[in-house]
Order: sequence, then C-alpha cells, then structure tokens
Amino acid sequence: MPTYSGPVDDLQFVLHEVLKVSEQDIPGYAELERDFTGAVLGEAARIASEVLAPLNAPGDRHGARFENGVVTTPPGFKDAFETLKNGGWTGLDCDPAYGGQGMPHVLSVATGEMFSAANQAFFMYPGLTHGAYSAIHAHGSEDQKALYLPKLVSCDWTGTMNLTEAQCGTDLGLMRTRAEPQEDGSYRISGEKIFISAGDHDLAENVIHLVLARITGAPEGIRGVSLFIVPKVLVNVDGSLGAPNAVSVGKIETKMGIHGNATCVMRYEGATGVLLGEAHKGMRAMFTMMNEARLGVAMQGLSQAVAAYQNAVAYAKDRLQGRAVTGAVNPTGPADPIIAHPDVRRMLMDQKSFIEGARALGLWGGTLIDAARRKGDAEAEGLISLLTPVMKGLMTDLGFEATVQAQQVFGGHGYIEDTGMSQFARDARITMIYEGANGVQALDLVGRKLAAEGGRPALALFAMLKDFCREAAAQDAAIARDFADPLKTASKQLQQAAMFFMEKGMTSPDEALSGSWDFLHLFGHVCLGYVWTRMACTAQARLMAGTENPEFYETKLATGRYYMARRLPATEMHLKRILSGASPVMALSPDQF
Amino acid sequence: MPTYSGPVDDLQFVLHEVLKVSEQDIPGYAELERDFTGAVLGEAARIASEVLAPLNAPGDRHGARFENGVVTTPPGFKDAFETLKNGGWTGLDCDPAYGGQGMPHVLSVATGEMFSAANQAFFMYPGLTHGAYSAIHAHGSEDQKALYLPKLVSCDWTGTMNLTEAQCGTDLGLMRTRAEPQEDGSYRISGEKIFISAGDHDLAENVIHLVLARITGAPEGIRGVSLFIVPKVLVNVDGSLGAPNAVSVGKIETKMGIHGNATCVMRYEGATGVLLGEAHKGMRAMFTMMNEARLGVAMQGLSQAVAAYQNAVAYAKDRLQGRAVTGAVNPTGPADPIIAHPDVRRMLMDQKSFIEGARALGLWGGTLIDAARRKGDAEAEGLISLLTPVMKGLMTDLGFEATVQAQQVFGGHGYIEDTGMSQFARDARITMIYEGANGVQALDLVGRKLAAEGGRPALALFAMLKDFCREAAAQDAAIARDFADPLKTASKQLQQAAMFFMEKGMTSPDEALSGSWDFLHLFGHVCLGYVWTRMACTAQARLMAGTENPEFYETKLATGRYYMARRLPATEMHLKRILSGASPVMALSPDQF
Repeated sequence: MPTYSGPVDDLQFVLHEVLKVSEQDIPGYAELERDFTGAVLGEAARIASEVLAPLNAPGDRHGARFENGVVTTPPGFKDAFETLKNGGWTGLDCDPAYGGQGMPHVLSVATGEMFSAANQAFFMYPGLTHGAYSAIHAHGSEDQKALYLPKLVSCDWTGTMNLTEAQCGTDLGLMRTRAEPQEDGSYRISGEKIFISAGDHDLAENVIHLVLARITGAPEGIRGVSLFIVPKVLVNVDGSLGAPNAVSVGKIETKMGIHGNATCVMRYEGATGVLLGEAHKGMRAMFTMMNEARLGVAMQGLSQAVAAYQNAVAYAKDRLQGRAVTGAVNPTGPADPIIAHPDVRRMLMDQKSFIEGARALGLWGGTLIDAARRKGDAEAEGLISLLTPVMKGLMTDLGFEATVQAQQVFGGHGYIEDTGMSQFARDARITMIYEGANGVQALDLVGRKLAAEGGRPALALFAMLKDFCREAAAQDAAIARDFADPLKTASKQLQQAAMFFMEKGMTSPDEALSGSWDFLHLFGHVCLGYVWTRMACTAQARLMAGTENPEFYETKLATGRYYMARRLPATEMHLKRILSGASPVMALSPDQF
Repeated sequence: MPTYSGPVDDLQFVLHEVLKVSEQDIPGYAELERDFTGAVLGEAARIASEVLAPLNAPGDRHGARFENGVVTTPPGFKDAFETLKNGGWTGLDCDPAYGGQGMPHVLSVATGEMFSAANQAFFMYPGLTHGAYSAIHAHGSEDQKALYLPKLVSCDWTGTMNLTEAQCGTDLGLMRTRAEPQEDGSYRISGEKIFISAGDHDLAENVIHLVLARITGAPEGIRGVSLFIVPKVLVNVDGSLGAPNAVSVGKIETKMGIHGNATCVMRYEGATGVLLGEAHKGMRAMFTMMNEARLGVAMQGLSQAVAAYQNAVAYAKDRLQGRAVTGAVNPTGPADPIIAHPDVRRMLMDQKSFIEGARALGLWGGTLIDAARRKGDAEAEGLISLLTPVMKGLMTDLGFEATVQAQQVFGGHGYIEDTGMSQFARDARITMIYEGANGVQALDLVGRKLAAEGGRPALALFAMLKDFCREAAAQDAAIARDFADPLKTASKQLQQAAMFFMEKGMTSPDEALSGSWDFLHLFGHVCLGYVWTRMACTAQARLMAGTENPEFYETKLATGRYYMARRLPATEMHLKRILSGASPVMALSPDQF
C-alpha cells in the first residue's frame, strides 16, 4: 500500500525563501507569513496523508460506478469530501463575499499539489467545482452569483465543465448541442456531452453543469457558442431545490486511470439552462479561468510524480538486491539496498530534480496569477499567459515520465497493481491529455502566446533571464559555473528557437508548428533551469550566512546541480529538432504512413 | 476496436534488400528466398490479424482467471492456440529431430513481431514454451530431450521459467527454493516462486516448469543454484502422464497489463524434479538462451509500438478537427483530418522512424544469432552478446514511449479503454521490466559486455561503423549529408563515451555505472542510425537503378531522414549526461532523498 507525506518544508522554502511571498506587493500577501502558511500547509498535509491517500488505491480498484441511473463514488469518498468541506478547504481562495476564505491563489496551488498527490481522482470533484465557481464569479450576474456561488464555495453543490462532444474535442467550432431561447429568458438545452469529469456522483445534493451550446440561429463555428448554467436539480429563486432537470447520465467511461472519478456522458434533453455571460461569447468566458485551470493540471502532473517518487525512495532504501560496486554498504545483511546502485540513483535524481524544480515553477506561476488578479499587474498577466502552456505541457509530460521511472525502481513489483505504482502512472497519463492535450498547448504557445502583444511578454522574459544570469553569476563562482552559465546557454538556445519561428512563421507556419512541441520542452527546461538557479542562489546565500540546517541547503544545491548537468542539456536536442524545420516532419503524404 | 495488419512488405524489404538473407553464408539461409519468406510471413500476418488481434482487447478485459485452484485463459485463447499448433508455428525454428521446422531464427523474429503485436499476452504462452525448449535442447540429456522436446515443440505441453522469489529478483543469489536429492536421482523441490508468466492455464495438458533451486548443501550465493525440470503432471518414462506433481498455483497477479497471461505465484511443496544440466550451474544454463530471449522481449516492445502506431495513423486520417495552417485539405468537410497538423505528424514520424529502424535492428540481431548458432561464428556471437542489452533496453524504452505517443494522437479517446490505445501502453510497459529490467541491461552492457573479450566485439563494431560511414558517404552526396555524416558524428560520441568508461571504470566504477542507462540509449541510437543508413543506401540504389515502386523507397528515405535529423541528436544529450560523471548522481546520502 503506497503512502504519501506532504512536502511542507519544501513548499515553505519556495514560498518564503525563494519567492518571499509575504514581502511581495500583492494584496493579501502580507498575511502569508511563514507561521501562517506553515499551519495551513501542515493541516493540508495531514488531511492528504491521513484522509485522502488511504482512499487512493481502494478508489482505483473500486472505481466510480453507474447502476440503475445512479453514479456512486468509491467507499470513503463521501466522508473525505465532508472533511474537506468542514475544514473550509473547498473555498480556500474564494471570495469571502460568498463564503470563501479569500486566500491568495498561490496557497491553493500549494495545498492542491498535496491533495492531488494523495488522491487525484478524488480531488477532481472539488477541483472542477472551483472551475465552475471561477466562471460564474467572473461572468455571472449578481443574482446568479448570489444563487450559486455560496453553494459552490462550500461544495454543497459541485460543478462541471461541459465542452467535448463525440465529434468535437479540440475543435469546439464543430459543436452541435443546441440552446433554444424560451419566453421566460431561459433556454432549453439539447445535446450530448462526453468526457465530463465529476459529471455525476453521490457527494453533493446538486451538480451545476456549465455547458457550451449554440443558441438557435447563432453563427456557425466557434463564434456562435454560448455558455449556460444547467443544474442537475433546478434551483428556485430562493435557492431551494426544485424539480430534477432534464439532464441524465448516459454512461460512465472505463478509463486507463482516475477510476474514482466519474467521467460521464451527459445527456441534455430539453434541459433548462440560463445564459452565463454574453451570448455567443461562451468560449471567452470559458477561457477566463484557463490559466488557473491549466496550472492546476500542471500541478496534478507534478503531484503524481511526487507521490510515486516518495514510494520509490522508500522501496529503494528497503529492497535488498546485489552489492554496491564500490563495496558493501550493508555488509551484515544479505545484500545492499538498491539505492546504493548508481542507476537507481539516476532514476531517483531524475525524478527529484524535476519535482523540486516543477514545484518552484508552479508556485511562481501561482504568484503571477495573484499579481494579475489581485493587483491588475498586466506584465504578470502577460507572463503567466505565456508560461501557462509551457507549465501544463512540461509538468505533465515530465510528471508522467517520472511516475514511469518510479514504477521502474520497483522492478516487477511495480507492474503489479498491489504496490500502487501502476496507478500513479495511469492517473498521471490523463494530465497530458485533458484541459487541452499537450500538442494543443504547444500550438497555443507557438501560434498565439509567443507573438501575443507583439511578443512583449516573451521579450521581457528573455531580458529578465539575461539580467538574472548576470546577477546570479556575480553572486558566487560556483553558482556561475554550475548554474548561471548553463542557464545562459540554454536561454540563448531558447531565443534562437524563438527567432527561427519569427523568421519562418510568417512565410511558412508549418516550420514553426513542426517544432512546437520541442519548443515547449525547450522553453520548459529553461524555466526549470531558471527556478533551480534561483533556488541555488538562495541556498548558497543561506549557507554563506550560516544556518542551523545546512543539510537542507546542501541537498538543494546538489539536486540543482544534477538538474543543470543532467537534464538541462535536453535543450540542445530540442533546438536541433526545431532547426531541422518542417521538411522532415511534413515530407510524407497521408497515404505514405 | 483496434486492428492490426502485418507489415509483410517492410519485413521482406529488410530481409531481402537490406540483409540479403538468402545470399548469406549461414546454414539454412539459402532456403530463405523471397517467395518462401513471403508465403510464411503472409500466412503469419493473416493469423495475426484475423485470429490473434480480435482476441487482444477482449482478453485484456476478461483477463486470465484463477478460481477454485484452476487457471483459465480468456475466451478464444484455446482455439487460437490450436491454430498456432496446427500450423506448425510453435516449432518454426526448432530442431527437426524433435518435430520442429528447422527454420532459421530470423524467421521466428519476423513472425514473432507480428504475433506479439496482435496479442502479446497470448503469444507469451508459446513464447515461454520456446524458452523451455531451448534450455532443455541445450542442456538436457538425450533421454530428457526425447521425453520433453517433442511435446514442447508442438506445444502439447507448455513451458515456464521460474527464477524470481519474493526476496530475489535481479539478485538470484538470495534464492531460497531448495532441492533435496532423492535416492532415485530425482530431487524434491520446495519453495515459492513469483511472477511466473504462463505459470498455469487451460491451453495444454501439462506445464513443464524450469525451476532454479539450491541443492541441499550447495554453496551460498549464485554459484550454488541449479536448474530443474519440474512438470505440473509427472511424466512416465514412456511419455505418458502420471500423477499430479506437488506443484500448485498460489494466486495470479493483478497487473497493469498483459491481463490475458496468467502471472502466477507457484508453490513447490516437495515436488519431484530432475536436474537439467550440471549441478550448481543453473545460472549458466539459464543464460544460454538469454540473447534469444532478450531479443524476443525487444521485439515485443517494438511490436506494441507497431500495433499502436497503425491505429494512431488510422485515427489521424479519420478524425476531423481544425484546419491545416497552410490551407484546408478537406474543404468540403467540416474540418481537416488531424494528420494535416504538424504536431500530429511529429508524433507519427517519431513512431514510424523508430519502428522501421528497430525492425531492421531486430532482424539483424536475428541473423547474428543464426550465424553464431548455425555456423559457430564467434564474431557474430560476440557482437550479438554486446548488442543484446542495447536492443532489449532501447527497443522497449522507445517502444513504450511510442505507444504513449500513439495514445496521445487519440486525445481523450486514447484514455478510454474502448479504443484499445491504453492497452498497448499498459502491455508494452512490462517489456521494460521483465527478462532483466532495463537498468540491469545497462549494467550488463557497461559492466560486462563492453569489456568482454578485452573489448574486442566493441572495437570491431566501432571499426565496422567507421568503414561503413565512409562507404555510405561515397555512394551518394545526399546519403553522405543526410545519413553518413550524422551517423559518423554519433559514432564518435559513442566511442568517446566508451573511452570515458574505460578510463574511469577501473578507478571508479560509479563513474561508468552512473552513465550506464544513457550509454545504452546512446549506443542504441547509433545502432538505429546504422540500420537507417543501410536502409537508405539500399533505397537510394534502388531508385537510381530504376524500380517499379519508387514510392516505397522514397518513403523509406524520407522516414530515415526524419530519424537522422530528429531522433539521432539524442546522442549528444546522452553523451553530456555520461560525461557529467558520478558526482551529480551519487552526491546525496540515502537519507537526503
């Protein structure tokens, strides 16, 4: 049975020593003092390890079930959901006007990492509810907000996002679900949606579906799509529940992973809905909370890597096989623990150096979202919009890869479902797909974000990296050699790739798009190199100043050196792939495959 | 429902135009004329696609079952097994003296790719039987051979390999299973073995277990281990079946994939066994057929990639989403097929260029095994021993990666079990683990094979690569630029890494072992670059000479150019990781993880 322990010390290190959140000039950040966040994170870690993690493997085996038209969640999910609700965790960063705690989003990123790591399938239920909350909060009328938000904040009701249909996933312009206006201002929604996570369940008395549909007579394509609030049970104006709506579950999907979450086919058969936001601007409303939602999925990718890694470390220390090549380290035992073997170390260090870098990157992203939202910081908004596809793509691709490595540490035992290592990989796999498949993230990055605002956010980031490398190199010769210099090299490669796209993109968009996925990874490694260098500067400064806990900082430096020496060199390969251009990629006609 | 089609044309191209098997001076190869192998491969492809593939997804859902002490295989497996038996496929490359067809092993490699691609879980039953056949053929007495081989060749009886115990996987010296000598010369075997693939089932009337155990009083460690034949049902001297042996199934494992194959815990409770080969030399006997077995697993990794790729191509041509950036290719339809999108192409080309290279590599490996076995060619023996861990590690790591990419092409539909794309990834995952986890392959490569015979096979290979690059470059300027030059660069990187290990390996083995996995991948990419360059030379020569089917050869060249431009550059990253040495890998103490 796998276990999970919340990485509170490491989260605190990033929040307070690297990002220095309580010193940042963002409304609400002054509250984020070390003791306060320590208490919040400590309690979240306790719930994650004691309440959610024990339900993870059983939830995978049992799965959500659909019988006689009713969806049920695995045993224990309901009680755990009550625990989250009672602790106020579901509304941690929600508006106090509707019962939320009003905390900065970065704190939700940190607690979300732990809740997802402990039980991704479970935490999707409140996670999707938060998405519905954000959409209604941003686009709802005052009446809609008053009616729905308190119940979504408390998770007395949960929420969903209904985008996909059988014939349309990425290309939502092909949508067929229809909304027919009624005389009372409501709409009758008809159509079938698929892949609706948390689409139905037994955790709450109502489910508030946000549904994309086309109003009768609306323009074809993506510009004719509107967003609707369609409750499972109709809500009276006084907030009490009315009759069941014409919404039903067609089936739940059998999936590779996240078995505990009900992925539903939802049928709307003349269901009553109300328009959320403006007509025909449903996509815009959906995209409002995209940065936040995609960062959330990035953190899920990381979180599965963390859970898998912790169990791989425990196994590597415990499992006795063979002898260390440099001499027995457990001479009185029958064999040495496999953590003594260099290739096992290589796997663990690949995971550890990714995890700690990605955690810092995700928390930095959280502060950018807060700066954009709480302070109206346009630069932060531009930067997080640029970084969002990078973080989503990189952290889920490498997060999945890390779970596979962790599974590999277990040898044959990793392939057996009993150890739980397969589940981490199977659950992580979805993060590369949902909330925009990673190829779509790469397209968003190269086709939209890189050139957004005339390329200003990208150029600002490149300039910042240049200045930062210089400053970091000036701090210390070892930092310069091990961190700042390799980061500078990688940053130049990133700029070279961006330049290639700008030159070619206009005349031949295929040239840029053939390298989009590699660009996302090149970009992502530069970001990880950047946060690692920041962490190294911090750690080095602490060690120079003297600290009671030198081992923590020395470990941080050693892990960072591994990242810079062994993972960052991927940038060069990605650059070569990009510069080879479109011709190798597009050479064949479809029938030559 | 996924489908599979045997790649007969491509297998024929490699066998006849690249490897020119019928011209090779290896006993039995003269028979391998194009028409003959075409007929064999065509019939194998038909069985694979029509008989085995339709049972693959249902077999995954149903799984092997263990009820009331009896193991049953999924519906249809028994009939399919009879089809293989009746066609003589189970003894294709077996000794005619025992009912085999006596074909070269390379033909089994080719048919095995197809049978495994169609249904890996199923084809493991005859696959493991073939392993037991090989062991008894190599080490059995004449009586043992006469008693067991005909039944194993025909698969009237199947075979297993019993190595692993709960406390020992890679480190077989920790083995506890005991063999107590009896007065009649037999042994009483007692112990518990785990992870026994095809350990029990309903496909055959007997199962011949090959069991590693320690004879009472034998030396401790790996040198005290012997190999035994332990039938499920005792066999009388006339070959008839006697009483049930004291062998039982403890349970079957619930695994990530290969659900149709029964992975058993086997209990030996004073079971009767006979010694196979010499006492205390069980490991040596086991290792006799290791090259063949590991090449078999390498081909399994490839085979799942092929099956997944074929379905990804079909989906990419069929699924309509979005418009090609360079203008609609399906203007009268609602959207373009996703194969028009560069990033979908990138995923398909990554897969295709791996698959066709790996196929050529695997078949080349098959000819080396034949040269070693049928001709006693010591150079071929040295080379295949060197290449075996490379092929096993590379083809399963990249094969799994390819299945994940194929799944990604399907977007959300790839995560749903209905499409079958998850199964390809889940089944491929085991190939990275069993028959020696890939980290163990890397250890075997760097710790044993690289320095074997004073490094002669490695040096011979490097010299061959050098000559070959020169010859290939001389053939044609385009071949030089696109193939021979990048191969030369990569080969030099391989030699540089080997040199690094030789220099450091003596004084600090950690230096070499910290880079072992990267060395395996660097080596593997050079091998793929080599076979791609050979294929390119062949294709180019065909085109220059004039051919009725120029498209086949042009496609081959374009796919090869993709490999050289976009995948081979991984060598540089692996070299950098290797040269960074042991210190980043080994910096932390175990409690710092």
